[in-house]
Amino acid sequence: MTAPYALSTTVARPFAETLQATREALAENGFGVLTEIDVQATLRTKLDVEVPAQVILGACRPPLAHAALQAEPSIGLLLPCNVVVRALDDGSTLVEAVNPDLMVSVTGNDAVVPIARDATTRLSAALEALSGVPSH
Amino acid sequence: MTAPYALSTTVARPFAETLQATREALAENGFGVLTEIDVQATLRTKLDVEVPAQVILGACRPPLAHAALQAEPSIGLLLPCNVVVRALDDGSTLVEAVNPDLMVSVTGNDAVVPIARDATTRLSAALEALSGVPSH
Repeated sequence: MTAPYALSTTVARPFAETLQATREALAENGFGVLTEIDVQATLRTKLDVEVPAQVILGACRPPLAHAALQAEPSIGLLLPCNVVVRALDDGSTLVEAVNPDLMVSVTGNDAVVPIARDATTRLSAALEALSGVPSH
Repeated sequence: MTAPYALSTTVARPFAETLQATREALAENGFGVLTEIDVQATLRTKLDVEVPAQVILGACRPPLAHAALQAEPSIGLLLPCNVVVRALDDGSTLVEAVNPDLMVSVTGNDAVVPIARDATTRLSAALEALSGVPSH
């Protein structure tokens, strides 16, 4: 269901509700959302095809982004941290965040390790909060 | 100067002019720009720090994105294709695109190979057009 390059959780709530809860969980863990791509709407408009509801949130914690840019000048290529919310066939919603370890493996730069570790802790906490939130 | 996970070119033109030329070169090679992050302005506003001018463009070619999502459901974590334009100290401008081969190495999914190849051809053409454009 999910990918090895992702941190993820499946939430037993509808898509729209989970998307809003994801924005809130990211904010509570220190991430702003800088970009938002409605994949379903984009593909419908551009290609006239239908895919399940999916939104890509570009999450950024400015102190981490600044530290990452100082450690690895080209790291903007891997920023912001994508968090993807998508509807599953059974009515539940999958929330995946790109695994920050990818920044380390792709760059091979040890200076990025503590930054990736902090991002992982915060993203994991956001996903955990989502799983634990009761449906309302 | 540049990173192994990037396709890149250095353009002997100022930042703002190169940014606009990059948008045009992407459009001419079939990419729309879905997101745009002004890294310099964001860090100035959020952290009161100064970094050189840098903008992250989120480039997307919808047919490629659709094909990628069908081949690899979690690929949204690696979309859109980031193209980073940043000012260098000598007055020239570096334009880097994330190397689409990363989508293959990260996912380990052979079905992504032709999609990454098409994206690489188009992004390389865009970068080549930038290098070749005379300053005006």
